Amino acid sequence: MKLILAVVQDQDSARLMNAMVDHNFRVTKLASTGGFLKSGNTTFMIGTEDIRVEKALQVIKDNCKSREQLMAPVSPMGGNADSYIPYPVEVEVGGATVFVLPVEQFHHF
Amino acid sequence: MKLILAVVQDQDSARLMNAMVDHNFRVTKLASTGGFLKSGNTTFMIGTEDIRVEKALQVIKDNCKSREQLMAPVSPMGGNADSYIPYPVEVEVGGATVFVLPVEQFHHF
Amino acid sequence: MKLILAVVQDQDSARLMNAMVDHNFRVTKLASTGGFLKSGNTTFMIGTEDIRVEKALQVIKDNCKSREQLMAPVSPMGGNADSYIPYPVEVEVGGATVFVLPVEQFHHF
Ligand code: NI
Ligand code: NI
Ligand code: NI
Repeated sequence: MKLILAVVQDQDSARLMNAMVDHNFRVTKLASTGGFLKSGNTTFMIGTEDIRVEKALQVIKDNCKSREQLMAPVSPMGGNADSYIPYPVEVEVGGATVFVLPVEQFHHF
Repeated sequence: MKLILAVVQDQDSARLMNAMVDHNFRVTKLASTGGFLKSGNTTFMIGTEDIRVEKALQVIKDNCKSREQLMAPVSPMGGNADSYIPYPVEVEVGGATVFVLPVEQFHHF
Repeated sequence: MKLILAVVQDQDSARLMNAMVDHNFRVTKLASTGGFLKSGNTTFMIGTEDIRVEKALQVIKDNCKSREQLMAPVSPMGGNADSYIPYPVEVEVGGATVFVLPVEQFHHF
């Protein structure tokens, strides 16, 4: 048995939850903020048998991998026109930080 | 030293907290949702010496064990009378998913 | 790789976060309540290489160590004058409960 803790961005959270359930993983979400990743995040806690750890990691990677996204230009507010970029820019979104922890005992009461 | 993570249903959370404190366990609760169990849940984080792990598991089991409960019939809403069950039914409530993790160092500052 | 879980009082949380970031630690905060410590608390989750564990513990100790603070007397409410203490008292504030957990795999996607 292993316990997987995965910190993922909020925007990937619902899709990851659906994918984990589709693959029969049991998941608990912990409310979390800041730190590992820039925007809001969620920590997934996933208990799984050793043999399915690689599958769980693959599902997390498939649904949360860091990627670039085109972002539409935003009009400058408050007159700070110097920093205005009038064309779409690529920003990095997503990403997951994942810890696999050993489990000494697992119980379901 | 071990770290016990126990995901329990919200309805058992207050009773479990009282029971753990009565037995001199130190507990932190993490806000958590969904996944392991159907309704709202709370994750208990309990640090304990190895020798008291069995006691902690017993207290969790005593206060959160999955059990059947009679539920009063609910009147159908929106005309979906086909699914109306006019007598009390047994539903499963409670239950706890528990991980015991090894701890390499423990400090209290 | 180790995972450090540190339960700290809310009043020390912002300072600890700044200090961890200053020392290049990556931190996720989990919403937590009660138990280990009397007032509101926050659980810090810090992933770090083995070689930096001692540094992380030092930063936590420096910013959250239990200490005494003078507290101004509070006027009695509702006529319970028996318990009124008319001079400042020393109360214990701060403190951190810290677990260092072994990590079997660490990934950043
Ligand atoms: Ni698949
Ligand atoms: Ni007892
Ligand atoms: Ni320093």
